[in-house]
Amino acid sequence: MPTTTPQTEKILVAGAWTASAAVRSFQSSNPATGEQLPQQYPVSSWDDCETLLDAAAEAAEHLQRSTPAEIAGFLEAFADLIDANNEELAAAASLETALPVAPRLAAVEIPRTSNQLRQAATAARNGSWAQATIDTKANIRSCYEPIGPVCVFGPNNFPFAFNSAAGGDFAAAIAAGNPVIAKANTSHPGITKKLAELALQAVLASGLHPATVQMIYRLSHADGARLVADHRVAAIGYTGSRKAGLTLKAAADQAGKPIYLELSSVNPVVLMPGVLAERGADLVSEFTTSVLMGTGQFCTNPGLLILQAGTATEEFLEGTRQKFVDAQPGTLLSSGVKEALVNAVQTLTNAGATLLCGGRPVENQCSVSNSLLRVSAKDFLRDPEIFQTEAFGNASLAVVADSVEEIGKVVDALEGNLTGCIYSSSDATDAASYQLVAPKLARRVGRLLNDKMPTGVAVSPAMNHGGPFPATGHPGFTAVGIPASLFRFAKLTCYDAVREDRLPALLRDKNPTGKTWRSIDLNWTVADVS
Amino acid sequence: MPTTTPQTEKILVAGAWTASAAVRSFQSSNPATGEQLPQQYPVSSWDDCETLLDAAAEAAEHLQRSTPAEIAGFLEAFADLIDANNEELAAAASLETALPVAPRLAAVEIPRTSNQLRQAATAARNGSWAQATIDTKANIRSCYEPIGPVCVFGPNNFPFAFNSAAGGDFAAAIAAGNPVIAKANTSHPGITKKLAELALQAVLASGLHPATVQMIYRLSHADGARLVADHRVAAIGYTGSRKAGLTLKAAADQAGKPIYLELSSVNPVVLMPGVLAERGADLVSEFTTSVLMGTGQFCTNPGLLILQAGTATEEFLEGTRQKFVDAQPGTLLSSGVKEALVNAVQTLTNAGATLLCGGRPVENQCSVSNSLLRVSAKDFLRDPEIFQTEAFGNASLAVVADSVEEIGKVVDALEGNLTGCIYSSSDATDAASYQLVAPKLARRVGRLLNDKMPTGVAVSPAMNHGGPFPATGHPGFTAVGIPASLFRFAKLTCYDAVREDRLPALLRDKNPTGKTWRSIDLNWTVADVS
Repeated sequence: MPTTTPQTEKILVAGAWTASAAVRSFQSSNPATGEQLPQQYPVSSWDDCETLLDAAAEAAEHLQRSTPAEIAGFLEAFADLIDANNEELAAAASLETALPVAPRLAAVEIPRTSNQLRQAATAARNGSWAQATIDTKANIRSCYEPIGPVCVFGPNNFPFAFNSAAGGDFAAAIAAGNPVIAKANTSHPGITKKLAELALQAVLASGLHPATVQMIYRLSHADGARLVADHRVAAIGYTGSRKAGLTLKAAADQAGKPIYLELSSVNPVVLMPGVLAERGADLVSEFTTSVLMGTGQFCTNPGLLILQAGTATEEFLEGTRQKFVDAQPGTLLSSGVKEALVNAVQTLTNAGATLLCGGRPVENQCSVSNSLLRVSAKDFLRDPEIFQTEAFGNASLAVVADSVEEIGKVVDALEGNLTGCIYSSSDATDAASYQLVAPKLARRVGRLLNDKMPTGVAVSPAMNHGGPFPATGHPGFTAVGIPASLFRFAKLTCYDAVREDRLPALLRDKNPTGKTWRSIDLNWTVADVS
Repeated sequence: MPTTTPQTEKILVAGAWTASAAVRSFQSSNPATGEQLPQQYPVSSWDDCETLLDAAAEAAEHLQRSTPAEIAGFLEAFADLIDANNEELAAAASLETALPVAPRLAAVEIPRTSNQLRQAATAARNGSWAQATIDTKANIRSCYEPIGPVCVFGPNNFPFAFNSAAGGDFAAAIAAGNPVIAKANTSHPGITKKLAELALQAVLASGLHPATVQMIYRLSHADGARLVADHRVAAIGYTGSRKAGLTLKAAADQAGKPIYLELSSVNPVVLMPGVLAERGADLVSEFTTSVLMGTGQFCTNPGLLILQAGTATEEFLEGTRQKFVDAQPGTLLSSGVKEALVNAVQTLTNAGATLLCGGRPVENQCSVSNSLLRVSAKDFLRDPEIFQTEAFGNASLAVVADSVEEIGKVVDALEGNLTGCIYSSSDATDAASYQLVAPKLARRVGRLLNDKMPTGVAVSPAMNHGGPFPATGHPGFTAVGIPASLFRFAKLTCYDAVREDRLPALLRDKNPTGKTWRSIDLNWTVADVS
């Protein structure tokens, strides 16, 4: 029996859609119906990778000579194509993910994706991201430059905004001047194929090297580890499960490759006593909306709530439980997500948490009833690791402490997280509690919020979608926000006494655009070197 | 037999000189005489580490509340104490390293060290290093903040400028707001002790937490790996041998800790045909000086020379050989360095390189005769890895290619390096060759130089003392240059809708100094938020 047939989908290698030297094939499913979709996608062999990697190395050399305008032109052409195909793309993605076409995909995520590509284009064209630094006295000049071929592994929960062939890591890697090898998320190969088709069209129209964007669907775990460690790969972006991410990290680390991970995060939310007394009912709505939105399948979903024991807390938890029970549970991204969620809730209850509601798989649907759990801070502190098990989906665990000091101890026991929120009263009631908890929380998270749920991740230059391990692999980098996300895919290069006509345009005396920020003798300026 | 005696030197823990719970003791040697020095230094047990780590965690929390002025005050007080004790420090360091008191230690390295500390103080006080980024519309604000306790492992070749208790990594970690656990280089424990004494004096005078600087002399390899992976450690700076560095990297990586390594580098220098014809004799002097300076014991020592076959190249090599033979070989840092150098030269000749001169250990001296080797590019390309063996010390390998294209192939086969130099003619003779080779070399090095040897590493804001693996662990960071070196010891923290009076001073509407550069809505400015 052949491992693939003429009907098996092709992979995008070296600028052409090519039959994969596949080891086998796989299909994706429609989570809303449970039915397998008809398309067959190849699981690539190492032979496919060899071709990809050689082409990527060639593209990287070629991109070193491409102009910022050419790179920006590609990103903008791609964004335009995505917008022009909004309807078709949204429908295709909904089929594979059960995410609603409207408003989520068509009105929110697709525009966010094209907007990210356009912001990346602006950053590439302007060049300020490269932080050109000039020491006129010593004639030493440095800037960030492309790092080389980047492998991107995208997650299941954002078929566009974090897609390996169009999302945040993709946009950042290309804007920094690198070719991308996109590994599709295996739960949505079809939408990744459509995005790669549009990307190729934009690549060819913009005159970049044809292998600037390549795409494969799947690899064995062993070949995945071999890919990230290959000498032709310069860096890796990965968003997904902790287990798979740490396996890739081990392979990349050993080979000395920077790998940027976005792994699990429980995103603690602290509700101080004063604010609960002040507007507990509002917070019930706000929290419920944040936990259940998108069936809780966001990296910044508030999975851990921390409160102080008391009447207001009991009222808050009962109000939330009621809303969780009343709300129809959404469809999850895959049967694997459903199974993992049920297991995670089971892990928490086995460890001693009380299930206030939910935790039950819905029969014949890719759903789990909305889950709210509670545990005392004392029990939490007996085994903080187990109670930080991520229940990815529509679930949250409330930790009830006896005092603010005990809230501080819970926060001190937290792993690294993407976000941490503190809600406090509008008056001074919670001021001292805030001062006790906030510094502890700030050390453990990438983003600290006040009076605001963490689920919105604005594409802002000041955003940090990152945080200490194990939320990510390095607390100094952000996966969202332009231009900061570009640094991940850049190397610092210093030019020492290099003759002026040989310098990159960014480092010559004349400001290349008249609008590029550069640090000249420790002052940021858009002026020429005088 | 007790493992230590009352005479065994004390370690600096939690602000006090304390008897080590040592597993054994060791002594350092005077490389110039081969004699052991009398002091006994402890090899710490894990018990010492527990005390250190708890104190460091407490100091990190305390430093979060220290002001930039207090941190800067410490760095400046320490710099002043170092300068005030120049004579005594230089003498002590010379005893352990055989580096000459004058000019090297007293007139060059000690002033460089105090200058680095003062530059770090200026950076801490000014705050621009933290790259405060403000999005006024979304009210999202971010900046780099202290990462937490930093372990510093210093190298053997710079007893001051890279000392774990006073050098570049130390200054950067402290200026970024972190406590340091310094692990002395075991070949110069005595000078590290003296520096730690001065550091403690400055810590106490400046009002910082007493455990801001701690120091131990030595650990077992197992405890070293355990230390860098400990949950109380946030990041590690290491400068030294590749083998020990990669062992620590594996431990740190697995625990998700950023580790900044500066490992081996052969620092390729390409001499183009035109410039050899133009001023070959000058280049002989320039190259010889750079290779033999400090007995070649610099991380940026030019250990690999690449030239094109021809009369000028033969003349250059013969001229250099003559100078190498005529020059008195310097004293090496230790018998270990001597042995490693002889072995490395042997490795290169075993692989097929021709020894033009040197390679012989000098009897009864810690010296090896100045070594020049040559190999054809064809032989080099048969096994590029073996011919990139670092011969740390007064040695260099010349690779002779048949054509510029072949020089390109040699460069394409290079590992990551700290530096790469290209010398070319002042006229257009070498222009095309430069264009062929420079982009290939730039991708593989942290610093590209023109017509200049790599051995000087200016403390410039535009310096990059870094480069792709295995020269370092990440190509985006520099170990020299302020403020850029501070980023290594920082985490990015984003404040999303945080009330203004709770923001760090750097992120409030008012510019905290009136001179701090911040990026407000994508424009760098020292103005307040308007």
